[in-house]
Amino acid sequence: MIHTIEWRNGAVVMIDQRLLPSQEVYRVYRDYRAVARAIKDMVIRGAPAIGVAAAFGIALGMQRPRRQPDKAFDHICRTFAATRPTAVNLFWAIERMRRCFAACKAKEPTRLSRRLLDEALAIHREDIAANRALGLYGARLVPKKARIMTHCNAGALATAGYGTALGVIRAAREAGKSITVLATETRPFLQGARLTAWELKKERIPTTLITDSMAGHFMKQGQISCVVVGADRIAANGDVANKIGTYSLAVLAKRHGIPFFVAAPTSTIDLTCADGDHIPIENRDPHEVTHIGDQAIAPKGVAVANPAFDVTPHELISAIITEHGVARTPYTRRLLKLCKATSAGSKVRPH
Amino acid sequence: MIHTIEWRNGAVVMIDQRLLPSQEVYRVYRDYRAVARAIKDMVIRGAPAIGVAAAFGIALGMQRPRRQPDKAFDHICRTFAATRPTAVNLFWAIERMRRCFAACKAKEPTRLSRRLLDEALAIHREDIAANRALGLYGARLVPKKARIMTHCNAGALATAGYGTALGVIRAAREAGKSITVLATETRPFLQGARLTAWELKKERIPTTLITDSMAGHFMKQGQISCVVVGADRIAANGDVANKIGTYSLAVLAKRHGIPFFVAAPTSTIDLTCADGDHIPIENRDPHEVTHIGDQAIAPKGVAVANPAFDVTPHELISAIITEHGVARTPYTRRLLKLCKATSAGSKVRPH
Repeated sequence: MIHTIEWRNGAVVMIDQRLLPSQEVYRVYRDYRAVARAIKDMVIRGAPAIGVAAAFGIALGMQRPRRQPDKAFDHICRTFAATRPTAVNLFWAIERMRRCFAACKAKEPTRLSRRLLDEALAIHREDIAANRALGLYGARLVPKKARIMTHCNAGALATAGYGTALGVIRAAREAGKSITVLATETRPFLQGARLTAWELKKERIPTTLITDSMAGHFMKQGQISCVVVGADRIAANGDVANKIGTYSLAVLAKRHGIPFFVAAPTSTIDLTCADGDHIPIENRDPHEVTHIGDQAIAPKGVAVANPAFDVTPHELISAIITEHGVARTPYTRRLLKLCKATSAGSKVRPH
Repeated sequence: MIHTIEWRNGAVVMIDQRLLPSQEVYRVYRDYRAVARAIKDMVIRGAPAIGVAAAFGIALGMQRPRRQPDKAFDHICRTFAATRPTAVNLFWAIERMRRCFAACKAKEPTRLSRRLLDEALAIHREDIAANRALGLYGARLVPKKARIMTHCNAGALATAGYGTALGVIRAAREAGKSITVLATETRPFLQGARLTAWELKKERIPTTLITDSMAGHFMKQGQISCVVVGADRIAANGDVANKIGTYSLAVLAKRHGIPFFVAAPTSTIDLTCADGDHIPIENRDPHEVTHIGDQAIAPKGVAVANPAFDVTPHELISAIITEHGVARTPYTRRLLKLCKATSAGSKVRPH
């Protein structure tokens, strides 16, 4: 069991993902600003995990009584909204906390704090449940004997637990399927090499690590049954923003006739984004590209581009796997329906 | 001027490419076995440069008189043939040295040594001339204002000088064209980040470094005029083995309607290979993937694949640029003709 993020004794506790796999360090946060900083600096990353971290952070910020609770709450929410622009789960979680606050702000301070914390804990719990549910839907799409390619880390570490893309892999394995994984290292931040390889090793799922540049070669050799990735934001038409490199994999998968699956909870779907062109793409520090740890790997002063995400158009995606079911092209109506299932509060269907 | 490899005072001198860009170290080799080791360990790399290194190494091995020159020569050649399997320029250079030896072995030892050295020096000189010639052919294919994507390092450092893909870029710039470059870092060995960025910085050609995973994203944004890469071996039908990741770039370029050019001297063409399926692909040490320098970036003991090259089928290649002219589909006849121009000893055409 991987403890990505938890509420423990009045504090937010996270495993520091920047230090994995060489060090397993859990950081304890008692100040919401430090939680916001942890999101920005990628102590925690992965769209669903960022959402959970923001929810816990907001609850943390409201644990002590405030003289002007409205103003304080709004300021805290804005602090989190400014951490990272692409993963919509962040804004989804903030919005849920806002609705909870609006409903409870008349209550006396201790009860308000408790209600906000309960809401954050619910977001945490529901994320794991959603992953388990979408894992089961996804597992059905995986052949009995499959070699699955995945990119970045859409695992327990990217969520409250279990994972989205790795949730599908875990569920397929739990369903008795014979699964091996080809994991791309995912430059520049190396989430594949550092996090996915680490998670799958713990699970004893046979995993081979490759560089991002090798994906096409192995697809051409007929070694890949399907590609499964997570998502940072899914537009209303099914376009998917995900870790940089996802688009290239989708183009390659298309050429080789390999199914390309996106696994994400409905909290990742942004119906207010008509298509991928409207998704803001974060550009990160050039240092992530020019350095590995403290080691420079490029000449000093070289110009660098570092977009953290790209957009995969829906026509390259074979299916989007959510906790309420699977969407296929045409996506617009189906995604709307899956989101309605969520907002109608329909329980995640037991399998 | 970059001095990749030279013959100086009876020794082979190479810049140690493993240490660039942080250190500029020139290594002096007086033993042919050390030269072979340097090729294997990638002190020097790049198909044409490997060929030149083998030629110098063979000449070096034959500088002192041998009791059984035939046997010694054959052993030396076999030592070099065992260094790296994919770049055909290695075998081409060995073959040329063999022919020289066969023609001169009746001479007295000092003259034989001298003739072998002269042959190696000719290979060195001709490689630079070939690059300058193919650069001029290639420059004509580049728009007046172009943003060129390149992969790995097919520059002065990959050749005796000037470069193949970077030769095209240099020649386009010398022809007064406005050139900017997008260089992929080229994991695992980082030839793009370490070598191409370093070379182009010296030339003051504006270069932006990206990770391999970002190529598709920037192609989709319409920012790339063409892709130019080198080659390690070109089969008779135009299939091209080149640094791992080349195939993915070619697939992406095709999707975006971006011309994809391969620049290589005819010494890279292997008419005995019918197609890409017959090109041996080197698998290198997993350590290159799991470590950057001494720093581990993946969990200990993770399984790794590390093919150093992939094969791009000819139908994805817009043109192959050689020192004798440009080949386009159908490649077979045209490549044969270009090779004949070489073996007929036709001089590289002055422009």
